[in-house]
Amino acid sequence: MHRHSVPLTTGSQRITDVTGACQEFVGGIGGDGLLHVFLPHATAGLALLETGAGSDTDLAEHLDALLPRDDRWRHRHGSPGHGADHVLPALISPSLTVPIDDGRLALGTWQSIVVVDTNEDNATRTLRLSLLPG
Amino acid sequence: MHRHSVPLTTGSQRITDVTGACQEFVGGIGGDGLLHVFLPHATAGLALLETGAGSDTDLAEHLDALLPRDDRWRHRHGSPGHGADHVLPALISPSLTVPIDDGRLALGTWQSIVVVDTNEDNATRTLRLSLLPG
Amino acid sequence: MHRHSVPLTTGSQRITDVTGACQEFVGGIGGDGLLHVFLPHATAGLALLETGAGSDTDLAEHLDALLPRDDRWRHRHGSPGHGADHVLPALISPSLTVPIDDGRLALGTWQSIVVVDTNEDNATRTLRLSLLPG
Repeated sequence: MHRHSVPLTTGSQRITDVTGACQEFVGGIGGDGLLHVFLPHATAGLALLETGAGSDTDLAEHLDALLPRDDRWRHRHGSPGHGADHVLPALISPSLTVPIDDGRLALGTWQSIVVVDTNEDNATRTLRLSLLPG
Repeated sequence: MHRHSVPLTTGSQRITDVTGACQEFVGGIGGDGLLHVFLPHATAGLALLETGAGSDTDLAEHLDALLPRDDRWRHRHGSPGHGADHVLPALISPSLTVPIDDGRLALGTWQSIVVVDTNEDNATRTLRLSLLPG
Repeated sequence: MHRHSVPLTTGSQRITDVTGACQEFVGGIGGDGLLHVFLPHATAGLALLETGAGSDTDLAEHLDALLPRDDRWRHRHGSPGHGADHVLPALISPSLTVPIDDGRLALGTWQSIVVVDTNEDNATRTLRLSLLPG
């Protein structure tokens, strides 16, 4: 198994495309296998999404309908509505596995790997990559 | 690692049971391990669900409450409400891993592996299967 | 691959922390790798969540907004609203993979592994653990 950690700066954006960072790791090793992607953070998830055609913004905005940033949450330190950030990983898991074909992520044409993170209080993240050859 | 691609015809149905296709692949290899199931498509997810007792229809219909097919979406080519299809994989991931016991998917009594796909514009799909023996 | 089954008593609580049971298995083997966690049950999911600061209760209660326990469901044996329990695993998958560093779950500071189960009719569960060394 090959393992790697990638530092990320997500800043205030809710969706961050990490396909390039994942492909760079996978391409440097080559061959077939599976890539496991993991976020060791309690307010972030990973999704496979089309980016650049509106869907990333659609998801970012629709999260406010699914997990409203109001005063319903018991967890309420930090920014207003921050409790919603802590429920997000239950719906969008921080664990994702993707096949690899000959050193390439075997993604569909319109799939990108994105970090989903509505927590603006923490702008730095770490991505954990584990590659199973085979 | 054993790898296999299965062509699927999902047609206009939102839920397609693929347990048989997965079991066929796993049974042909035998032994213990883990099966990774993956969809290289940007409008589909995988779920473990009881089928045949109403829950597949319940999920199919409730997705319209969670992701309404109205004009809220920025991504709006194709059928009306198609933007919802592109947010679906963030909530229902196209990546799933299941244990294998002696050539059998180690599913619970009421669990089936289903493809969830609300996009009626594309009726053919590919299922990527990767088996880790061990 | 190392494999293990852990019996669980979830009782009537919706969120059950299983980090300790996972760590005990992983620590007994040691080394680096990946841990796959799986629930062979059709009304339960796994999430990575901060526990003990309100978010577990936030998730437990917000599930009633996402999946209302009313008479909308076709699947309707058991307790009122039980159909919602059967849709839950589509949103909160019963499959989760976590990196391991030197015999320790490589979780973030605020991440715990929890079983999410709104079905009060079944209080005993099994957790399937598979460890891939490497």
